[in-house]
Amino acid sequence: MSIEVVAIGNEVLSGMIVNTNASYIGRKFSELGWMLSRHTVLPDEIPVMVQGLKEALQRSTVVIVTGGLGPTIDDLTGAAAAQVCKSAPTELSNPVGSAPGFQYLENSKYLFLLPGVPNEMHAMFDLHVLPVLQKLFPARGFRKKIHLCFLNEKEIDPLLRNLQQKYPSLDIGIYPSYGKLSVALFALSKTPIDVATEEISTKFAKHIFTAESGNVEEAIHNWMISHKKTLALAESCTGGTISTLLTAIPGASQYFLGSLVTYSNELKTKILEVSPATLEKHGAVSRMVVTEMLQGLFKVTDADYGIAVSGIAGPSGGTNEKPVGTIWYALGGRGKTPVIDTFIAKGNRESIVQMTSKRLLSFLWMHL
Amino acid sequence: MSIEVVAIGNEVLSGMIVNTNASYIGRKFSELGWMLSRHTVLPDEIPVMVQGLKEALQRSTVVIVTGGLGPTIDDLTGAAAAQVCKSAPTELSNPVGSAPGFQYLENSKYLFLLPGVPNEMHAMFDLHVLPVLQKLFPARGFRKKIHLCFLNEKEIDPLLRNLQQKYPSLDIGIYPSYGKLSVALFALSKTPIDVATEEISTKFAKHIFTAESGNVEEAIHNWMISHKKTLALAESCTGGTISTLLTAIPGASQYFLGSLVTYSNELKTKILEVSPATLEKHGAVSRMVVTEMLQGLFKVTDADYGIAVSGIAGPSGGTNEKPVGTIWYALGGRGKTPVIDTFIAKGNRESIVQMTSKRLLSFLWMHL
Repeated sequence: MSIEVVAIGNEVLSGMIVNTNASYIGRKFSELGWMLSRHTVLPDEIPVMVQGLKEALQRSTVVIVTGGLGPTIDDLTGAAAAQVCKSAPTELSNPVGSAPGFQYLENSKYLFLLPGVPNEMHAMFDLHVLPVLQKLFPARGFRKKIHLCFLNEKEIDPLLRNLQQKYPSLDIGIYPSYGKLSVALFALSKTPIDVATEEISTKFAKHIFTAESGNVEEAIHNWMISHKKTLALAESCTGGTISTLLTAIPGASQYFLGSLVTYSNELKTKILEVSPATLEKHGAVSRMVVTEMLQGLFKVTDADYGIAVSGIAGPSGGTNEKPVGTIWYALGGRGKTPVIDTFIAKGNRESIVQMTSKRLLSFLWMHL
Repeated sequence: MSIEVVAIGNEVLSGMIVNTNASYIGRKFSELGWMLSRHTVLPDEIPVMVQGLKEALQRSTVVIVTGGLGPTIDDLTGAAAAQVCKSAPTELSNPVGSAPGFQYLENSKYLFLLPGVPNEMHAMFDLHVLPVLQKLFPARGFRKKIHLCFLNEKEIDPLLRNLQQKYPSLDIGIYPSYGKLSVALFALSKTPIDVATEEISTKFAKHIFTAESGNVEEAIHNWMISHKKTLALAESCTGGTISTLLTAIPGASQYFLGSLVTYSNELKTKILEVSPATLEKHGAVSRMVVTEMLQGLFKVTDADYGIAVSGIAGPSGGTNEKPVGTIWYALGGRGKTPVIDTFIAKGNRESIVQMTSKRLLSFLWMHL
């Protein structure tokens, strides 16, 4: 028994749209302890769709098709499915949009047709498809995700290889990201999960943080609320990205006061009281300016903790002395000596902003 | 002749990672005037990978495999490819990481193996794969994207169906998004593109904006710079997201002063001088508070234009009178009567913040 997802749409093949629908279904199914056997993306061409759906129904018990169900000219999924199936479909209601979905049950195989618009697909998957999957694939197994700040893949690999030898059926995934790394464990019995968790927690204790989402901002969120502390930011090159990450979590207003995104030198002076002489002498990306930004932040807010950051996100603005990606930051608690340091973030503008934002949150977490 | 992309990895099937690599390759290929014929995602299991690669090489001239090439235990792509191909691979250098890629040329078919880490995959695709594709698939055709603010899919569909009847070979894609809609046109000859562009531009003139990226923030960016105007924001519920969107564009510092993310009432008063009495009487999400936020923004910055926004992003904090998703905003130019209005954004917290941010940028664009 297996399940696969088929997305229909030239807009996915041409890269205009990323196939997040398959990821959504994959996550929901893996929460039950199972894994999709395949994702496929096919073009808006009926013969290719017909052939693709036939192959999928041969391989798998359940085939979930997303996309191509709307009211417009490029929506052909219904026509293709009608050529593949002999039975009549059942209509599936759409609680958040206008296009309905369809379900076929043919030769004990399930074929679901869902719209491609993500929020409609999510709602209809949860309402119509998930209950069927829960019956066919009863929840099983034990899962654990362990999240670690500032740990390199290579540092943990020997320990994981060792665990894999000890428990060949233990499923181990390693997911490095900016400033952190997550290890996902799955097994049908509990012992391998417990042993692996214990070994990783012991060896890398100082790197570990706890967060459902795997994001260090969630660990900061929980810490701030449970310790009744507040946080404010003074962002420049990150342009509000750190604030966006923190406020994505419901309840952030319990500890997060706000972020003064002083993108211009003018606002650094007006809002954060950074001295024009300091800006003139050291430049906006400097130890002195982030120091004054943090001091200003503590002056104009009542925050218990603060982060100030200034850097060169590029692609222009770099010099020999301060290349693109140069970041200066200051962070710490009110009245305490702040951590003030610099690093160079690599990649394009987007990567530099993302990496810097994630790294600064990890630095703050390690500091708390 | 066709090209398909095969991604390897349980982390993609289980939804931990979204398959952005396939989108990247799809975009690059569609810039040449061609479309990928298929994306497939397969698990880290050698027999399934071997079978999947064989099928892909039967269907297509070029198969690009991403993922499963790293140093860790779940990296099996090299072993699977060696079982499928009789020839020896050529090593492909990795300019931004440690794991090399490989290229096989077997029975006039090309098989590329690239790492799964996006920035490494991008660099290696551009360096090693794109030149081969450019030779095999010479750039062709004419493309045009037209972007429209606040236009419903249904309003433009009749005109597009009409165009499709007139030019059956014209390829039309419609991509609705928060506060905007994009129409992508492709044809092998120029006339259908010109006619379609003319018809759409005439009928929906007041909705159109011009932006390479298709994002209205790019149109604002270009307008502000060419008109030598400046912009600042006073964000509350959007938490810095509007600022993040604007500063994602290189050169934003030429017009963007910054964003005062006054998430707490305390900061609304301290930074934007919103009166505590107003907050007390009307609540933070109200016509009066966004009016004072915009006034304060013009007072503490020299900005020519400003947006102030306050709302309930949820999931908690809603009331009968002001349900979750209630948004108040004020925007306009210094010294002019601002536009002050409210709307209700639907969906979860993330959707509400995204939709609000995008809609406010569209409102500002329509106002300029």
